[in-house]
Amino acid sequence: MKTKMFEFKLNRQVEFADTDMAGIMHFSNFFRFMEAAEHAFFRSLGFSIYDTGHGQAIGWPRVHASCDFCYPLKFEDIVEIHLRVREKRKKSLVYLFVFRRLNKRPVREVARGSLVVACVSKRDPHGPMVSIPIPKGISSKIGVAPEE
Amino acid sequence: MKTKMFEFKLNRQVEFADTDMAGIMHFSNFFRFMEAAEHAFFRSLGFSIYDTGHGQAIGWPRVHASCDFCYPLKFEDIVEIHLRVREKRKKSLVYLFVFRRLNKRPVREVARGSLVVACVSKRDPHGPMVSIPIPKGISSKIGVAPEE
Amino acid sequence: MKTKMFEFKLNRQVEFADTDMAGIMHFSNFFRFMEAAEHAFFRSLGFSIYDTGHGQAIGWPRVHASCDFCYPLKFEDIVEIHLRVREKRKKSLVYLFVFRRLNKRPVREVARGSLVVACVSKRDPHGPMVSIPIPKGISSKIGVAPEE
Amino acid sequence: MKTKMFEFKLNRQVEFADTDMAGIMHFSNFFRFMEAAEHAFFRSLGFSIYDTGHGQAIGWPRVHASCDFCYPLKFEDIVEIHLRVREKRKKSLVYLFVFRRLNKRPVREVARGSLVVACVSKRDPHGPMVSIPIPKGISSKIGVAPEE
Repeated sequence: MKTKMFEFKLNRQVEFADTDMAGIMHFSNFFRFMEAAEHAFFRSLGFSIYDTGHGQAIGWPRVHASCDFCYPLKFEDIVEIHLRVREKRKKSLVYLFVFRRLNKRPVREVARGSLVVACVSKRDPHGPMVSIPIPKGISSKIGVAPEE
Repeated sequence: MKTKMFEFKLNRQVEFADTDMAGIMHFSNFFRFMEAAEHAFFRSLGFSIYDTGHGQAIGWPRVHASCDFCYPLKFEDIVEIHLRVREKRKKSLVYLFVFRRLNKRPVREVARGSLVVACVSKRDPHGPMVSIPIPKGISSKIGVAPEE
Repeated sequence: MKTKMFEFKLNRQVEFADTDMAGIMHFSNFFRFMEAAEHAFFRSLGFSIYDTGHGQAIGWPRVHASCDFCYPLKFEDIVEIHLRVREKRKKSLVYLFVFRRLNKRPVREVARGSLVVACVSKRDPHGPMVSIPIPKGISSKIGVAPEE
Repeated sequence: MKTKMFEFKLNRQVEFADTDMAGIMHFSNFFRFMEAAEHAFFRSLGFSIYDTGHGQAIGWPRVHASCDFCYPLKFEDIVEIHLRVREKRKKSLVYLFVFRRLNKRPVREVARGSLVVACVSKRDPHGPMVSIPIPKGISSKIGVAPEE
């Protein structure tokens, strides 16, 4: 019996280019950090998000993205991005992300976000991307996180 | 009697650097486009978002950001970002954004997002930013958009 | 006889997301602005840089990029990006870019950069990109700017 | 006698948001990677680039940036950014950067860049940034790399 994975933690340090003139990380970068954690989660399952080795080119376009911001992140802050799989649907996944700033006391949650991503592929190489059921080889490795 | 402004339309063309290897605009850029429209809205009111000329340095950190994505945007697509003020609270504003792709038929809505921004300032120059009521000189120029 | 184009001017306004915690436009964005001017130059020739309609998929990878910075750009500054074709080689183009800040007196040059871009294509659809002579339909429309 | 540091190596993995529709890392990100290595180099000296603890606020604006590109980087490639101090002038530093792709055989140099950064500070808190000699506490820790 295979173990299903339902969470992943990625640490990132805020870089100078991530900041804006308000002296804090620009809010759009929280979404890039969510995606970085999602892709690291896929690598932890044994495959790349854009080359899962399941015989067809698969994509994961974002259907929904949101984030609530409590505290700003500053240059060189170290943030833990805690990804949790909140829902596994037939053709999509719902991720929850909790951002915790690790380098200052108290360690505190600074933001909380979510992504809904759809599984898509091409029926033929030159056709459009269409929504497909998550391939079994991927789906069988992903579990749903217990309630916090 | 002054007219209150409650909406703004900004057109943008998707640039090469906005795209990703999936061949479409990276989703994080929708949030940058929302902010660009917000700042253009403020300029249309007669002041810059970071220098409103109301005697104190004011900031507008994002408290919440979200977006629903229906259709991808591609390189050189022209998108209209339609900002509408959905709520005007004492210390914050809620914006709704509708993205319409203008350069292909049919013109269609490709995404819909929202931002909640808080009005903040410093009590003293070296202190932290704290939430404040939106200054009258700003608030008096902003109205709430009627329901669509 | 067709007119050859050898220059293009694009105006841009510095956005909040373009700035960093030093309060100025992050230097990496000067390179994005150069590319935006290059692509607008191609549109002025009548085709998109990634779909020139010459019967084969062409790319223009950067071989060299450089920039000298004299004055910082700030939020909402309006900058003119003046592209000039400095050299037209068999398989590559050399562009020079002069950045002028338009919204403050004196109007002054704030930066000067250059890009060398190679013309590449695929011999077969699944093969690697290889350097090719610039197609005649493109080359015939591009001239070399006179010395300043 | 203190040891002077003259080089630093930082590894980075190319993220999805770093790529563009050509399927490779956008060239502007090479400049962001150089800066990330520069800041990590400063941390290795014992201080943050924007808070060196030498009694005055110091900045390091870029005076020049350049890069030569040989091979593209793709999604999830791991690149070593090798910073070397090429020159230490009274008021500026010249860095050389060599990018090596580590995750594919052969390991090869993919790009080579340089940054010239000036040391600046404010004479008074509300005045402009002016060029200053590199403070001794910083300068004494930085050496010049031997020729390769």
